[in-house]
Amino acid sequence: MTVTLERWGSFHLGGQRVVVQGQPLRQVQFAPGNPPTPLDPNGTYLVGGLYVQFMVPAPRRGAYPLLFWHGGGLTGVTWDSTPDGRDGWQHFFLRQGWATYVSDAVERGRSGWTMVPEVFGGAATYLPLENPWPRFRFGPAMGEAFPGQQFPVEAYDNFIRQCVPRFTSTDQPTLDAYLAELDHVGPSVVIGHSQAGQFGFRAAQARPDLVKALVLVEPAAMGDAALVRALAGVPVLLLYGDYIEGDARWPAMRERGLRFAEAIRAAGGSAEVVDLPAAGLHGNSHMVMMDRNGDQVAQLVQDWLAARGLWA
Amino acid sequence: MTVTLERWGSFHLGGQRVVVQGQPLRQVQFAPGNPPTPLDPNGTYLVGGLYVQFMVPAPRRGAYPLLFWHGGGLTGVTWDSTPDGRDGWQHFFLRQGWATYVSDAVERGRSGWTMVPEVFGGAATYLPLENPWPRFRFGPAMGEAFPGQQFPVEAYDNFIRQCVPRFTSTDQPTLDAYLAELDHVGPSVVIGHSQAGQFGFRAAQARPDLVKALVLVEPAAMGDAALVRALAGVPVLLLYGDYIEGDARWPAMRERGLRFAEAIRAAGGSAEVVDLPAAGLHGNSHMVMMDRNGDQVAQLVQDWLAARGLWA
Repeated sequence: MTVTLERWGSFHLGGQRVVVQGQPLRQVQFAPGNPPTPLDPNGTYLVGGLYVQFMVPAPRRGAYPLLFWHGGGLTGVTWDSTPDGRDGWQHFFLRQGWATYVSDAVERGRSGWTMVPEVFGGAATYLPLENPWPRFRFGPAMGEAFPGQQFPVEAYDNFIRQCVPRFTSTDQPTLDAYLAELDHVGPSVVIGHSQAGQFGFRAAQARPDLVKALVLVEPAAMGDAALVRALAGVPVLLLYGDYIEGDARWPAMRERGLRFAEAIRAAGGSAEVVDLPAAGLHGNSHMVMMDRNGDQVAQLVQDWLAARGLWA
Repeated sequence: MTVTLERWGSFHLGGQRVVVQGQPLRQVQFAPGNPPTPLDPNGTYLVGGLYVQFMVPAPRRGAYPLLFWHGGGLTGVTWDSTPDGRDGWQHFFLRQGWATYVSDAVERGRSGWTMVPEVFGGAATYLPLENPWPRFRFGPAMGEAFPGQQFPVEAYDNFIRQCVPRFTSTDQPTLDAYLAELDHVGPSVVIGHSQAGQFGFRAAQARPDLVKALVLVEPAAMGDAALVRALAGVPVLLLYGDYIEGDARWPAMRERGLRFAEAIRAAGGSAEVVDLPAAGLHGNSHMVMMDRNGDQVAQLVQDWLAARGLWA
């Protein structure tokens, strides 16, 4: 099915200036056959910027743009074609007439990373191939899939190729960059995954007028409990996949989501939790948008957004 | 001007498996509020993969896809919207009816980087904000533009946000990944910039049947002089911008390009060199595709491709 674009492209925004001083000169050979060039590492660095790629369809049917915020150790590729080459959620929602904005979180992907350890502190973490398989609930151990698993495990290597080093000390600059994105794009619907749960909630708490709805797929962390009232006017949908019960981490993480949703409702807001198996969708891993039934889950999100008057 | 897409998306390909052993366990707190999780860095890593994003217009007028290979210290964003927010070369050629394939070189952008220093050796290099200005010929010194400069220097910060650490020890895996891309996509036209000069030439020397034409914008390094005969059937266009004469590095780099083009012609091939100022296009920096007259240069490339029967 073809799609007509009104416009498309990308931009960088946000971040801060940092000055490095007192480091020695380095000699770098930039290309074979060229002599080494002296490189002075001292100077100013622009760190913590955010890369955002957008596609705006014609005609538009979504009332606001959709901002897609990926999870930890990944990039905006999460929302793109699936590891086994099917169309992903970006395709699904663009075809429904939503303008899509897909970003790479701070220090990941096309946002770049700064190699200036003084800035954010902490070390980047890179996961060996064997790590995500059980942690993302593809199966009990590397190479062994849960019965009925919807993740295309035969394309696991392609999923691993999407993984990048993750920084565990960049939460504040990441939130700052997402706020800059909201300020730049204007009123939007945020669709976040995993690590982006906290960024979605915190961004909505900081910009309740700009976040028109919040869809969080298996959020790994929540917002600021003290500011839960700020979410009273932001419709929230939380989605959880399958195989959570027997998992080491996810029962507690889901429980935190349920409690936070409860607190939002107690503050007069609207927060709906959907366990996909209870909604008749079985076999979903942590990477719901890549699962074979990913379009069915996207349709559930689409119906929820439409029911809130955000699509016509 | 709208564009209709037949399909779009992305994929990763290429790379190799590397096993890391004997490293101690680490404790990582992946998200606030969650307990530290033990992380075993030992295991298998997939390194040297390539991220490729494609857009296929309907109808198509280009005989083959265009593969865009960016320069050092950058990502595929080079070909995207310009730092001052105008449409870039990817827009231009897609609108002409070419299928576009934009990649992030190995260890950069959405291709990820591996943090396994044993693999490729060498250290990544990250440039302070002040470095590219004179080196990319925006002007004699930071903040000072050459008269008639076409690069949008007022958006310099946004250009810096596009810069990423560069690896100077990954030439072979990068070439391998580009060959994997050619093998996967099939016969293509390659448009390369700066560092990608060597990859364009070497890929065409390794896959002369798959590279139907080679357009190199200010190539920083050439192909294998011993294999120049392999290029006899590949039409080559080299482009150079302005302000080269007074530059510290570019007169010698351009001279190497001219000599390599001469060697291709001596081997019976076709290699054309265009100095943009001599073609009436003045004020171009090293980042030709981002310059204010970037579309005029793109039109020159378009006409050259059309004249070779590659567009109808």
